Amino acid sequence: MLVFDNYPSGLTYSQSSKSWRVRAVKPVEYEVRVCEGVFDPASTALIEQTADAAGGNRRFVVIDAEVDRLHGERIRRYFEHHGVDYFLQVVRADETLKEFETASDIVVALDSFGLDRRREPMIVIGGGVLMDIVCLVANLYRRGTPVVRVPTTLIGLVDAGVGVKTGVNFNGHKNRLGTYFAPVLTLLDRSFLTTVDRRHIANGMGEILKMALIKDVRLFELLEQHGPALIERKFQDDGRGGDPADEVLRRAIHGMLEELQPNLWEAELERIVDYGHTFSPTLEMRALPALLHGEAVTVDMALTTLLAWRRGLVDLEQRDRILAVMRALELPSWNELLDADLLDAALQDTIRHRDGQQRLPLPAGIGDAVFVNDVTREELAVAVEDLRVLNSRELSRV
Amino acid sequence: MLVFDNYPSGLTYSQSSKSWRVRAVKPVEYEVRVCEGVFDPASTALIEQTADAAGGNRRFVVIDAEVDRLHGERIRRYFEHHGVDYFLQVVRADETLKEFETASDIVVALDSFGLDRRREPMIVIGGGVLMDIVCLVANLYRRGTPVVRVPTTLIGLVDAGVGVKTGVNFNGHKNRLGTYFAPVLTLLDRSFLTTVDRRHIANGMGEILKMALIKDVRLFELLEQHGPALIERKFQDDGRGGDPADEVLRRAIHGMLEELQPNLWEAELERIVDYGHTFSPTLEMRALPALLHGEAVTVDMALTTLLAWRRGLVDLEQRDRILAVMRALELPSWNELLDADLLDAALQDTIRHRDGQQRLPLPAGIGDAVFVNDVTREELAVAVEDLRVLNSRELSRV
Ligand SMILES: NC(=O)c1ccc[n+]([C@@H]2O[C@H](COP(=O)([O-])OP(=O)(O)OC[C@H]3O[C@@H](n4cnc5c(N)ncnc54)[C@H](O)[C@@H]3O)[C@@H](O)[C@H]2O)c1
Ligand SMILES: NC(=O)c1ccc[n+]([C@@H]2O[C@H](COP(=O)([O-])OP(=O)(O)OC[C@H]3O[C@@H](n4cnc5c(N)ncnc54)[C@H](O)[C@@H]3O)[C@@H](O)[C@H]2O)c1
Repeated sequence: MLVFDNYPSGLTYSQSSKSWRVRAVKPVEYEVRVCEGVFDPASTALIEQTADAAGGNRRFVVIDAEVDRLHGERIRRYFEHHGVDYFLQVVRADETLKEFETASDIVVALDSFGLDRRREPMIVIGGGVLMDIVCLVANLYRRGTPVVRVPTTLIGLVDAGVGVKTGVNFNGHKNRLGTYFAPVLTLLDRSFLTTVDRRHIANGMGEILKMALIKDVRLFELLEQHGPALIERKFQDDGRGGDPADEVLRRAIHGMLEELQPNLWEAELERIVDYGHTFSPTLEMRALPALLHGEAVTVDMALTTLLAWRRGLVDLEQRDRILAVMRALELPSWNELLDADLLDAALQDTIRHRDGQQRLPLPAGIGDAVFVNDVTREELAVAVEDLRVLNSRELSRV
Repeated sequence: MLVFDNYPSGLTYSQSSKSWRVRAVKPVEYEVRVCEGVFDPASTALIEQTADAAGGNRRFVVIDAEVDRLHGERIRRYFEHHGVDYFLQVVRADETLKEFETASDIVVALDSFGLDRRREPMIVIGGGVLMDIVCLVANLYRRGTPVVRVPTTLIGLVDAGVGVKTGVNFNGHKNRLGTYFAPVLTLLDRSFLTTVDRRHIANGMGEILKMALIKDVRLFELLEQHGPALIERKFQDDGRGGDPADEVLRRAIHGMLEELQPNLWEAELERIVDYGHTFSPTLEMRALPALLHGEAVTVDMALTTLLAWRRGLVDLEQRDRILAVMRALELPSWNELLDADLLDAALQDTIRHRDGQQRLPLPAGIGDAVFVNDVTREELAVAVEDLRVLNSRELSRV
């Protein structure tokens, strides 16, 4: 749905207050496109998008080292086939390397390459970590250079490759430095998932589950029904028709974009997509590298599901369905670091992030959410205890 | 003048191309206000602007070390008088310290302070270097934190404090990393200029002269008539009525904002305010710390004035008036590093910055400009030679 909005823009000067007021409007537009086989020689999506008007064909490509090891050969062949004068910068990327230094190494390479600021889009091929870093670089390099993303992980496909947030960790804090910067295009090619290990597929399921819990009961049912098979088949079509992987991906992405588009710069701080992201940033950083992003998010969701249950927002059956799906998706719902102090520190930091209030999304049943501002230390302590008990019971049952 | 513009926004999905298109609009607004005596106890402009709705009064203030030495006592008294719970981060700043490390030190201090992301605007008090750094930090910290600027140098008052560009030097390149980020407010208090040394006042004159040359012949005449006195009195009111300092500042700022507002994100790469900024970024960085920013800009303007003269865009009388004003404003029009190689490297880098074309603004008479794309190495060599000869003549005359 498209609306047309009216915004004032211009320069005004008030003689009496000796004051200028500058108003301007920045329109932003980007595309997220499903494109299976991006690097098949016959596919031209990537080539077309990054072609420059002047007929040049230089491309600066940043690729995750692991992706290069597994897919590098066909990617090189692709560029060669299309006669592209490319430079491939291979970068090791995981959460522990999500730092400014990794970004600045890329900048040095950009300088050597001699990138044209506006007409030579960079290309990034990798997971959420590398995309977040490279899009930050794209925002900063000469104050903005276009970038095209090719996500290669499940988190990349359904989350990091879909929005406009960039960032690196800093001073022990998750994404402490970052920006909002729209890419030109994201090309979604799930064939990359065939080489992603099981744990990282499950990890991406964490973010899909989040979308299901807060706004899409149908997605939740799909996860209940097909989750384990999706992990097993790594989201590839099972050829039996219906292709649940396609429907799950499409619903997760569509739901995410519906939430992001009206709030691209997070002017509104009550964001249901922040569900699972209240306590997890602190947990993820403290546990680093033990917990992956989607795992930390799932632990947060398990905790807040119990909180919601104690508040009567989620009933017992719903609570147990949610926890059961987490297990079925091979995701953790508990971490030994969880205690009152960590939760308190995390909540304080989140409050600073949400303008002095908790603005904590909680599930309301399955597929809906509410915001609360009055979660207490005591309540958190109870939820942690509930979760601990449930998990040790679960363990003893196995 | 205010116009109302219509922009599409929304999310659309095309079934056939399996593609989502995200459109959104970011309205930006900021104020630049003349406010003499910002830190007089009676002045409330700074306090009001940074007050938060929740009644908090914590302020994170970054101040240039030199400004702190000269004005720190009264600034502290100001905050204490108003009962503000402030933290003053004192930062050494000059062009050689305009680096990411200076920015990251400020981020660490912000973390210790525990800044609320949206409701506690940072305050920066300093010159162009510190403002550029702190506004970059403000953009990056938790993906955006409001900032209020109080410029303390002439470049700060007429240029760096007026627009939305942020940046740090990197890998030997001027402002290689940066963003566009609008502050909430700039408060212009020329009383800070009383402690700025003569050379840095002249330096700011370089940017004022730029505005005069490309679009404001009246401003040029004011500089011819009052320039030396303005430097002498450091832009303070001479009490004789008329206050030429006020008129010069106002015209320079107004002209700058007129050019910036319709092109805040530099979508249009033909910018007359880039005059003097084609060769100077490379020259300034290579000469560092010998040439100040406005000095390097003036050398660039001298060179391109000669280029324009050889092309018949500027006549002999105009050429000599321009060079005479440069001298009267105590600005250099020559630097020993100028040679064909430097100019070539600089032009190549600028072309990368301007999307593959020179887009070189040249003065057309005094107070107007044109863009050219066909400057040759030979032409540059001639202009350098002309400039060398003129300058050595000038020297022998002294
Ligand atoms: N910008 C956003 O809106 C957004 C949204 C969600 C998550 N994120 C960020 O994304 C990050 C997590 O992303 P991630 O899970 O993709 O992590 P990641 O980028 O670290 O990738 C995980 C691991 O998989 C490897 N890998 C990548 N593609 C592969 C492939 N095709 N085959 C085999 N191995 C492959 C990588 O080398 C890495 O070791 C977090 O830092 C998180 O903050 C950002
Ligand atoms: N963002 C923009 O749009 C923009 C525009 C023009 C220039 N700039 C940048 O601004 C920088 C130049 O600014 P600058 O000339 O203010 O440099 P600066 O910030 O280095 O200040 C110059 C010197 O004056 C000192 N100083 C500052 N205020 C003082 C005061 N009141 N009294 C005595 N000393 C004082 C500083 O410590 C410094 O040593 C360059 O890096 C340039 O790229 C940015």
